[in-house]
Amino acid sequence: MRIDLNCDMGEGFGRYDIGQDAEVMPLISSANVACGFHASDPGTMHRTVRLAKEYGVAVGAHPSFPDRVGFGRREMSASPAEIRDDVIYQLGALLAFCKAEGVSLRHVKPHGALYNLAARDIEVATEIAAAVRSVDLSLYLVGLCGSALAAAARGAGLKFAAEAFADRGYGKDGRLVSRREAGAVLDDPGVVAERVVRMVRDGEVTAVDGTGISIDPKTVCVHGDTPGAVTLLRAIRRRLELERIEVKSFSGQRRREPPSEGKERRR
Amino acid sequence: MRIDLNCDMGEGFGRYDIGQDAEVMPLISSANVACGFHASDPGTMHRTVRLAKEYGVAVGAHPSFPDRVGFGRREMSASPAEIRDDVIYQLGALLAFCKAEGVSLRHVKPHGALYNLAARDIEVATEIAAAVRSVDLSLYLVGLCGSALAAAARGAGLKFAAEAFADRGYGKDGRLVSRREAGAVLDDPGVVAERVVRMVRDGEVTAVDGTGISIDPKTVCVHGDTPGAVTLLRAIRRRLELERIEVKSFSGQRRREPPSEGKERRR
Amino acid sequence: MRIDLNCDMGEGFGRYDIGQDAEVMPLISSANVACGFHASDPGTMHRTVRLAKEYGVAVGAHPSFPDRVGFGRREMSASPAEIRDDVIYQLGALLAFCKAEGVSLRHVKPHGALYNLAARDIEVATEIAAAVRSVDLSLYLVGLCGSALAAAARGAGLKFAAEAFADRGYGKDGRLVSRREAGAVLDDPGVVAERVVRMVRDGEVTAVDGTGISIDPKTVCVHGDTPGAVTLLRAIRRRLELERIEVKSFSGQRRREPPSEGKERRR
Amino acid sequence: MRIDLNCDMGEGFGRYDIGQDAEVMPLISSANVACGFHASDPGTMHRTVRLAKEYGVAVGAHPSFPDRVGFGRREMSASPAEIRDDVIYQLGALLAFCKAEGVSLRHVKPHGALYNLAARDIEVATEIAAAVRSVDLSLYLVGLCGSALAAAARGAGLKFAAEAFADRGYGKDGRLVSRREAGAVLDDPGVVAERVVRMVRDGEVTAVDGTGISIDPKTVCVHGDTPGAVTLLRAIRRRLELERIEVKSFSGQRRREPPSEGKERRR
Repeated sequence: MRIDLNCDMGEGFGRYDIGQDAEVMPLISSANVACGFHASDPGTMHRTVRLAKEYGVAVGAHPSFPDRVGFGRREMSASPAEIRDDVIYQLGALLAFCKAEGVSLRHVKPHGALYNLAARDIEVATEIAAAVRSVDLSLYLVGLCGSALAAAARGAGLKFAAEAFADRGYGKDGRLVSRREAGAVLDDPGVVAERVVRMVRDGEVTAVDGTGISIDPKTVCVHGDTPGAVTLLRAIRRRLELERIEVKSFSGQRRREPPSEGKERRR
Repeated sequence: MRIDLNCDMGEGFGRYDIGQDAEVMPLISSANVACGFHASDPGTMHRTVRLAKEYGVAVGAHPSFPDRVGFGRREMSASPAEIRDDVIYQLGALLAFCKAEGVSLRHVKPHGALYNLAARDIEVATEIAAAVRSVDLSLYLVGLCGSALAAAARGAGLKFAAEAFADRGYGKDGRLVSRREAGAVLDDPGVVAERVVRMVRDGEVTAVDGTGISIDPKTVCVHGDTPGAVTLLRAIRRRLELERIEVKSFSGQRRREPPSEGKERRR
Repeated sequence: MRIDLNCDMGEGFGRYDIGQDAEVMPLISSANVACGFHASDPGTMHRTVRLAKEYGVAVGAHPSFPDRVGFGRREMSASPAEIRDDVIYQLGALLAFCKAEGVSLRHVKPHGALYNLAARDIEVATEIAAAVRSVDLSLYLVGLCGSALAAAARGAGLKFAAEAFADRGYGKDGRLVSRREAGAVLDDPGVVAERVVRMVRDGEVTAVDGTGISIDPKTVCVHGDTPGAVTLLRAIRRRLELERIEVKSFSGQRRREPPSEGKERRR
Repeated sequence: MRIDLNCDMGEGFGRYDIGQDAEVMPLISSANVACGFHASDPGTMHRTVRLAKEYGVAVGAHPSFPDRVGFGRREMSASPAEIRDDVIYQLGALLAFCKAEGVSLRHVKPHGALYNLAARDIEVATEIAAAVRSVDLSLYLVGLCGSALAAAARGAGLKFAAEAFADRGYGKDGRLVSRREAGAVLDDPGVVAERVVRMVRDGEVTAVDGTGISIDPKTVCVHGDTPGAVTLLRAIRRRLELERIEVKSFSGQRRREPPSEGKERRR
C-alpha cells in the first residue's frame, strides 16, 4: 500500500521567503513548484528543483494566473486561449530547470484561483489539458476527484492523480467545507494523521456531519505554508509508517531517504 | 554558397504590436523570439512560433534582462548566477511553445544590454553558455565574432554562429560604429544588399574610413523594427538570389517557400 | 451651449506607442491618462501631462486593474478594499506629474474592466468613490449615466460627469449595443458628428431600432485608438462649430487654441 | 538635544511580510515607506501609512529602481530623466495614501542601488532633487553627509537631513566599511546604543581603526529587517532616554506615545 504526499513549494519571491521548504521537502514525495506567475522567480525555481532532487521528490509545475500581488488567488476573466498559453509558458520555464538539474518533470497542478476555475469550468480545464499534452504527453494532471479537470485529462489522454486534503473538512457531498465555515481546517496533528490513514487504507473520510464518504486519492495535499506544516507532516509520516503505507510519488519516482543525522551535521 | 538571415521577432506585448513580423518572416531564415522579459507575452510567443513554423524559419530564443519598460536596453548589475537562471527560464518558456508546435529550438541570441554585456564580460558570457548547455547541448549561441560569448561557447562545447550586421557601419577595427556617430546606420537598400553580398561572397566589408575588413559571418542580422526593414530585406534577398547564394539557417533547417499568391488570397 | 470631448490618452508603454496622442490632443477638452496599471509608465505619463498642458486639455486619471498583458480588459476578483487602494495609488502617481507640470487634476474615469464593474457593482463603485474623495474632494468621477458609479459619486458628495459615446450604437433601453452585435460601432464621420450634435443640442440619440432616446451627457467619449479617430474628431469639431457649441471641459478648464500653422511649422 | 531615528518600512509585498513593522513603528520617528518599485503594493502602503499615523511617525518616500526580484539592489543604467520620472511616480503614489489618511509627507530617501548611485553621481542626484522639488518644495531629502545628493538638495533649495548608521562600521575616511569586510556590521545592542549616543551628544563616532571621526547626523538609520532590530532599537531608545535626548523627526513632527499596555491588551 502506498500514497503520495504533495505540497506547494518554492513560493518565495526575490528576497521574500515563505513556507519552510528545507524542512518540508524531506517529508513529501511530490513538490508543486511555483513558476513565477503567482510566486517564485528564476533563482528560487532553480534552488527549489535542486532541493527536490536532493530528496528524490517528484517535481511538478504549479502554474497560476499572472498575479503576484494577489498570489494567484484572484480569478481573472482570461480567455481559455490565454490560459492555455500562460500554462505552456510556465510549464516550459520549470521544465528547463528540470533539464538543467537532470530530473524529470512529473505533473502539473494548477494553483489557487486557476485550480478552482479548472475544477468547475470544462472549457478552461480542456485548454489546460491541451497545454500540458502539447508539451509532454506523459505528465500527470493533479486536481479534485470528479472535477472538470479530471474529465479534461481523460479527454486528452493524460493521466490524472485525484487529490484529497489532509487538513481540510469535507461536506457530506464530498466537497471541501468553505474556509468561511466551521470545520474547514483541521490542525490537530493526531487527528489529521489518522484521517490520512483512513483515506488511504480504508478509502473513507468522515464529513463534518459525521457521514462516512468514499474517497480514493492518489495523492494527499498538505499545505506547506501554515505554521504547523512540519509537525503535521511528521505526524502523518509516523502514522503511515506504522501502517506500513509507503510514501511514494504517483508517478513511481522513488524518494531518497533524508540524509542521516550524522550527514546533516556535517553540512 | 549560403547565408543565414536573422531578425528579432515577436517583440510585441499584450495589445502592442511592433515590427512587421508577418511581412518579415517570409524573408528570413532565423527568428530570434522574445521570451517575455524585455518584450512579448505567452500569447505573442505562441503566435510567433506558429508563424516561424509556417515558413520553416529556424526558431531561436532572445533572452533579456527583466526590464519591459526599458525594452531590455538598460544594463542591470545582476549577478552572473541571476543571469544564468533568467536565461534558463526564458529558454524553457520558448522551448515549450516549440514543443507545442512541433518545431525545434535552434539557437540563443541574447538581447540588447545583455547582448552587449555578454560580448565583453567573460564571466557573464560563461554563465549564459552554461545555462544554454544545461538545457540543450545542441543549441547554437549567436553573437559578435571575437566576443566573450564566442569564447564562452567554445569553452562550453557549444556551436557558435558569428553574426554581421547588414545595415550598420563598421570601424577599421572591425567594431560597429556607435549609433551616436556618423555612418552608424545605412539605409539605402541597394547599398545594404551589395554589402551583404560582399560579406558572404568575398568575406569582406568596407569600414567607414574605406578600409576593407575581413569578415566571415554565419548569419547576418537585419533589424526588423525599422520602417524600411521589409524593403531592405527584399533588396538583400534579390541580390543574394542573383549571386545564387542560398538563404538558409546555420543550423541546416530549410525554409519553406512563402505560400503562392493564390494561397495567400484564400486566407 | 457647450460640451466636453474626452479621450483615453497616454496608453503607450515603454517603447510601444498606441493611439495618436499628438494629433488627438489638440481636438479634445479632457484627457483620461493611463496610470501604469493597464498601460503607460512614468516617462509616458510625464510626456502626456505635458502634452495636455500645451493645449489646455483637462487631465483626468484613468485607473485600471493591474493587468498590462490584458490591457486592463480582464476582470479580476479583487476585493473592494484592494480596488480602492489600487485607485488611490494610480491617482497619486498621476497627481504628482500634474504638480510637477503645474496643472490641475480634474477627473477620474475607471478603465476597461474596472469601468464596467464600477458601472454595475455598487460596492466596488462605492470604494472607488471613497478612494477619489479621500485624495481630492473636488475631483469629478466620469462614467455611464445611471450607473452604480453615478450613485456612488452622489453618495460620496463627488461631482459626476455622465458620458455618452460618439461612435457606439445604443439599444432602446439606453444601453450600449454589445460589440458582438450589429450596429455596435459607427464609423462614418458625418453620421457620428451629426449624432454628437443631436445628443448635445437636442438631448437625444437614435437607438438601433430607430427609437429616440433621451440623453444628457456632460462629456462625449471618442475612442482615440481607432484608425479613424482623428478624422472622426475633426468632423465632430466642425459640426459643433457650425452649431456654435463650445468644446470645453465639464470642470470649466479652458482649452488653449492649437498653435497656428506657422508655429507648427517651426517645430 | 534631540535626534531622529529612521527605518525602512512597508517592505512586504502581496502575501509576503518582511521586517517587524508593528514592533518597530512605536520605536522610531521617521518611516521610509516603500512605494511599489522594489517592494510593497497599494494595500501594504496604505496599511503602513496608517500604522505610522497611529504613532505620529513622520512618513517619507523610499523610491527605488523598478526591480522587485532584486529588491532594488541592482543598479540599472536608466537615464537621469527616467530616474526623475520614476521618483515622481513613486512619490505621488505615496502622497495619495498620506492624503487619504490626513498625514503629511515629510521626506524622501532613495532606496538601495538608487541610494548609492545618488550618493556619487551628481547628474542623477540633481534629477532626484528636481523630481522632489517639482512635487513639493517643503520635502526633506535624506542621504549621506557629503554625498552628491546633499549637494543636489542644496542646489535645488531643498532641505537635507544627513544620516548616520547606528549599526554600521565607519572607515577613518568617514565612509561605511564595505559589507564584505570585517567590522561592517555591529550587532551588540549595548555597543550600538552607546555609539548612537556619542554620535548625537558628542558629534563623534569611532572608526574601525580606532580613529575618532566628526559626525553631525540629523537622523540615524536602523535597519528594520535584521532579526535583532527591535532589541537594538529598544536599547538605543533606553540610552537616549537616560541622556535626555529626545527622539523626534527632523521635520519637527511629534511622535505619539505608544498606547499604554492596557490599551494594547484590549486590541
